[in-house]
Amino acid sequence: MEYKNMQMVNGDLWLTEQERDNLRIGYRIKEVISHEKSPFQEVAILDSYDFGRMLTLDGVVQTTAADGHIYNEMIIHVPLTMHANPKKVLIIGGGDCGAAREAAKYAGVDQIDMVEIDEVVVRQSKAHLQEVSGNLSDPRVNFIFQDGIKYVKDAQNEYDVIVIDSSDPIGPALPLFEKDFYAGVHRALKEDGLMVCQSQSPVLHMQVLRNTAQSLRELFAIQKTYIAMVPTYPGGVWSFTVGSKKYKDTDASKLPGDTKYVNEGILSACFQLPQFVKSQLDG
Amino acid sequence: MEYKNMQMVNGDLWLTEQERDNLRIGYRIKEVISHEKSPFQEVAILDSYDFGRMLTLDGVVQTTAADGHIYNEMIIHVPLTMHANPKKVLIIGGGDCGAAREAAKYAGVDQIDMVEIDEVVVRQSKAHLQEVSGNLSDPRVNFIFQDGIKYVKDAQNEYDVIVIDSSDPIGPALPLFEKDFYAGVHRALKEDGLMVCQSQSPVLHMQVLRNTAQSLRELFAIQKTYIAMVPTYPGGVWSFTVGSKKYKDTDASKLPGDTKYVNEGILSACFQLPQFVKSQLDG
Repeated sequence: MEYKNMQMVNGDLWLTEQERDNLRIGYRIKEVISHEKSPFQEVAILDSYDFGRMLTLDGVVQTTAADGHIYNEMIIHVPLTMHANPKKVLIIGGGDCGAAREAAKYAGVDQIDMVEIDEVVVRQSKAHLQEVSGNLSDPRVNFIFQDGIKYVKDAQNEYDVIVIDSSDPIGPALPLFEKDFYAGVHRALKEDGLMVCQSQSPVLHMQVLRNTAQSLRELFAIQKTYIAMVPTYPGGVWSFTVGSKKYKDTDASKLPGDTKYVNEGILSACFQLPQFVKSQLDG
Repeated sequence: MEYKNMQMVNGDLWLTEQERDNLRIGYRIKEVISHEKSPFQEVAILDSYDFGRMLTLDGVVQTTAADGHIYNEMIIHVPLTMHANPKKVLIIGGGDCGAAREAAKYAGVDQIDMVEIDEVVVRQSKAHLQEVSGNLSDPRVNFIFQDGIKYVKDAQNEYDVIVIDSSDPIGPALPLFEKDFYAGVHRALKEDGLMVCQSQSPVLHMQVLRNTAQSLRELFAIQKTYIAMVPTYPGGVWSFTVGSKKYKDTDASKLPGDTKYVNEGILSACFQLPQFVKSQLDG
């Protein structure tokens, strides 16, 4: 079987990511834990020296044992502490199960629907990447293996919070970055609902962030951008964009006690954007 | 002449950094602008595809045209807005001249002594990396080409702000991370003086950050840690540590108007540390 982006170099195994042909990030790998070709992509769990176990899709790192919690905490705890009373949560994507795991920390949440197109990602993450997935067995989590775009089209006035935890805007995930899709998300939300999506690196993919902010500004009463460090993503910093019908502030008193990245300070500091990001978003 | 960390791969020139043998970051290079062996190190200015011109020392990226301002703004504007009336500033290292350039934006500053061991770094940066150095010709800037450790030993009760803008704690820069040196810096500061140093990545070099914080806590009345994104440094996030005899808060009203990263929000948000950093610094 072919292993994308993997090479042996002087007896060592390396995974090397290519970013826009001009930047490469290489991880020395101890061991290939699992490797499976799904109908959608090549799904592998690798054990790396610096970041522990990692989930890769088509040879691109999605999450790692060392820093996966940062992304998952940030994509969940910001919207869930912003909504006054979130009961029903929809996660689109998020096959590593880390986002669902964080959402399940809220006692007030009754139902977490997780719509992931690729069942293999969920199965492998639950089996081999429990540092991220937590081997999620919470009965409130519904796994729905289906296309997120289609799923959202059929939902109306149903969710308090929708989290779009997609991979990069290439291939199957591309439509998840389009305004049509966000309009569907808006319809699927209740009248005081809110959504959040990952919107790529503010350093390397500013156009994606800008387009996302623009789309959500046109659809929602409130649009906000926040950032977090994600060491294993190119550029090291990641952006998230919120579209909200009513609520606009996070409430740190709602945070679960066992977070590793988020705390009260981070929950407000994350909205303070560097000047070059701010001026590009405003301009 | 030997070029450290540079290879031709399929007709393309690449600079590849090694981080702790387990992580590699590669930059595709358009052109070698200059390359000179100094008595201390190999100094090169390279033009890269993604980050523009870069200064490398012994094949390790120090600063780039694309993101050099982030580091330089953060190492200068935090201490200079924290001190009530900084007149005399000492920069140890900082051969790319970017820190001196930022310090020169304060009209109230009378003198900026820049003690850099390697004259070649300054000369090359002024000639070929003006995106960072600004081709600094401000008469308040004194270039002193000398060992920073020795220089600090001879200074007493002299400076308002001391900025330690060192390279990584290997080779010649190692003593700049030791408590003896910080004790000298404490002596060189006036009675209301303050210092800041770069203290490496909170993700990859937590031990360096922890040791630095510990040393400064023992020497100074006030110790603070802050962070900034630096996309071209491994891990993407960088830490800075402040030791202050008197002042403890930044005053955003003192910020110069032409910053690209720092603004009022960042000046307070930068002190909000992720929970895993906070608990390791406290513990």
